[in-house]
Amino acid sequence: MTSSRLERLDRVRSAMSTAGVDCLLLSLGADLPWLTGYTAMPLERLTMLVLPADGDATLVIARLEAPRVEEDRDAFAVVAWDEHEDPVELVARLVGARRELAISDRAWATFLLQLQATMPDAAWRAASTVTGPLRAVKDAGEVAALAAASSAADRVATALVRGDIALVGRTEAEVSDDIGRRLVAEGHQRVNFAIVGSGPNSASPHHDATARVIGPGEAVVCDFGGTMDGYCSDITRTAFTGDPPEEFQALYGVLQEAQAAAVAAAAVGTPCEQVDRVARDIITGGGYGEFFIHRTGHGIGLEEHEDPYIVGGNGQPLLPGHAFSVEPGIYLPGRFGARIEDIVVASDEGPRSLNRVDHALAVVEA
Amino acid sequence: MTSSRLERLDRVRSAMSTAGVDCLLLSLGADLPWLTGYTAMPLERLTMLVLPADGDATLVIARLEAPRVEEDRDAFAVVAWDEHEDPVELVARLVGARRELAISDRAWATFLLQLQATMPDAAWRAASTVTGPLRAVKDAGEVAALAAASSAADRVATALVRGDIALVGRTEAEVSDDIGRRLVAEGHQRVNFAIVGSGPNSASPHHDATARVIGPGEAVVCDFGGTMDGYCSDITRTAFTGDPPEEFQALYGVLQEAQAAAVAAAAVGTPCEQVDRVARDIITGGGYGEFFIHRTGHGIGLEEHEDPYIVGGNGQPLLPGHAFSVEPGIYLPGRFGARIEDIVVASDEGPRSLNRVDHALAVVEA
Repeated sequence: MTSSRLERLDRVRSAMSTAGVDCLLLSLGADLPWLTGYTAMPLERLTMLVLPADGDATLVIARLEAPRVEEDRDAFAVVAWDEHEDPVELVARLVGARRELAISDRAWATFLLQLQATMPDAAWRAASTVTGPLRAVKDAGEVAALAAASSAADRVATALVRGDIALVGRTEAEVSDDIGRRLVAEGHQRVNFAIVGSGPNSASPHHDATARVIGPGEAVVCDFGGTMDGYCSDITRTAFTGDPPEEFQALYGVLQEAQAAAVAAAAVGTPCEQVDRVARDIITGGGYGEFFIHRTGHGIGLEEHEDPYIVGGNGQPLLPGHAFSVEPGIYLPGRFGARIEDIVVASDEGPRSLNRVDHALAVVEA
Repeated sequence: MTSSRLERLDRVRSAMSTAGVDCLLLSLGADLPWLTGYTAMPLERLTMLVLPADGDATLVIARLEAPRVEEDRDAFAVVAWDEHEDPVELVARLVGARRELAISDRAWATFLLQLQATMPDAAWRAASTVTGPLRAVKDAGEVAALAAASSAADRVATALVRGDIALVGRTEAEVSDDIGRRLVAEGHQRVNFAIVGSGPNSASPHHDATARVIGPGEAVVCDFGGTMDGYCSDITRTAFTGDPPEEFQALYGVLQEAQAAAVAAAAVGTPCEQVDRVARDIITGGGYGEFFIHRTGHGIGLEEHEDPYIVGGNGQPLLPGHAFSVEPGIYLPGRFGARIEDIVVASDEGPRSLNRVDHALAVVEA
């Protein structure tokens, strides 16, 4: 066990005590690997770490998965259940008389319902109320891992903006596959997504890459990321195939200004919602306010999306080590759209962008 | 909308009425695409179909994802929420005064907690109590899709047992990647898993493929599957690099007999637990009872694991159209293990195995 994991365990217990949580129940999602190094499989067989504020932690796991767990006696014991046993009963027994419980945000609802039925007088909340603020602040090793993943993604984005990734004449799906292969070739173990939205599809922020063939004179929004040594990358650049019309250039100019201003605003102490506000005000001032239909960003780390969210209503001030995306976009339905995204870390030296690829509109061969 | 989806909607409403469920709330998992063709993204932005027993269905979705939804006015309306809105409030408003609610098994616990807080007098259950028995019975089109995916996986397994996939001298991870690429080349859109457990790792049923180099004289358990046109494949074959010792041959002989007998027992009307019992009795009779540490199988369809489960305690009799794995295994900790798995469909003509690759121990070059 790394000392860093023991430290995390100490901080979690301290946060539980402050929050009045008696026991943490961790299953799917990144809290469990963040604390133990073990990732639960997303299956109907329950895996759950029972972590009491006042006692030792126990990992409840199906016997056939138990050999996957690296023994870590400093951190937790392992209790393996057989197929005829009920893991929910095992968890309830380990929880004992504790009644203020917090469960992984991404645990399956069916397990929460079974746990609630077995412990009818327990009070429940999401584990992120305890772990979210802790995981949001990255230590130096985590920032280095995020920077390495961002650099790998940068090498793919550089190929895109230089025109080394052919667009015209290929389908969105082909370009998406190409980007995915490049992410792996640059060091990612896993591709999490590779959005390629061309022409009118560029106005759909979470567009699935389709069999649409990319043509000349089109905006192409490429938003992609993967996981490298546990940490996520996420970058967006927009290309235009051939000479962009003035209307698109004007839109893009406003977007570029908004994104740069929001990054510059992301200083320690600035509330998250203020970073969102800076981008939104510029886009609204440019006349595109109603076409910026999502928040400005999300935290990133072991998960693609985590605390802190850069969104209206989030008054959380940025702390040193907060890592998040800054990704405003403008989308004219049925016509075209654009987005620019970098991962930024707040630090006492000011906002540090982990992505370094040019922000200018990438005009590529038609 | 295909007529098949409209029929499914009718059957779901009828099952809700029988079960006393007022409203179904569908998010992550296969129930939503099975009914609507739309798959929710596994993100912190809630996507949820509100399907009342007595009213029209509405899909609640983030505005930036709304363009991904194919309009389907016969089936459901779309309500898009903006980033400053609370989707849980929107869902609660659509649920109205209904109080017997069923939520997707795989919905995130955090959303269930928020919904429970917003509708404190609602009673909750898992959606699979309604949808599980319906989805478990595959129609002819679904059986054809499963058969096509199984045939594609068979072509990869054939390469394995013939020795066309090199084992000795490569790492488990390399072989796993190779198998994954072959699954895609044979028509799968996605690889779901490719377990490669060699030597002592063959005794870990859910082993992650590692950097361990496969040597001569080793058992190699390969269990892999993917998704092809929406439906899953899943097959296991065990190879041995070089001449297997008598002890392993004896173990494998018992396993092969158990697997064949369990497949033969999977007739319409036979309880699921009886199929498990048939395999278990033969393995126990052979002296390996304590080393068969998992159930005999799981249903398969849009999801890798779904109803019906072939496990002790499940008295559900097999119905025509039930599709499931038959995959007993024997695992001697620290030494070696073996597993044989086919996908089987129960039908009035008897059990039909969708996988056709030879079951004999694959002795490959050392």
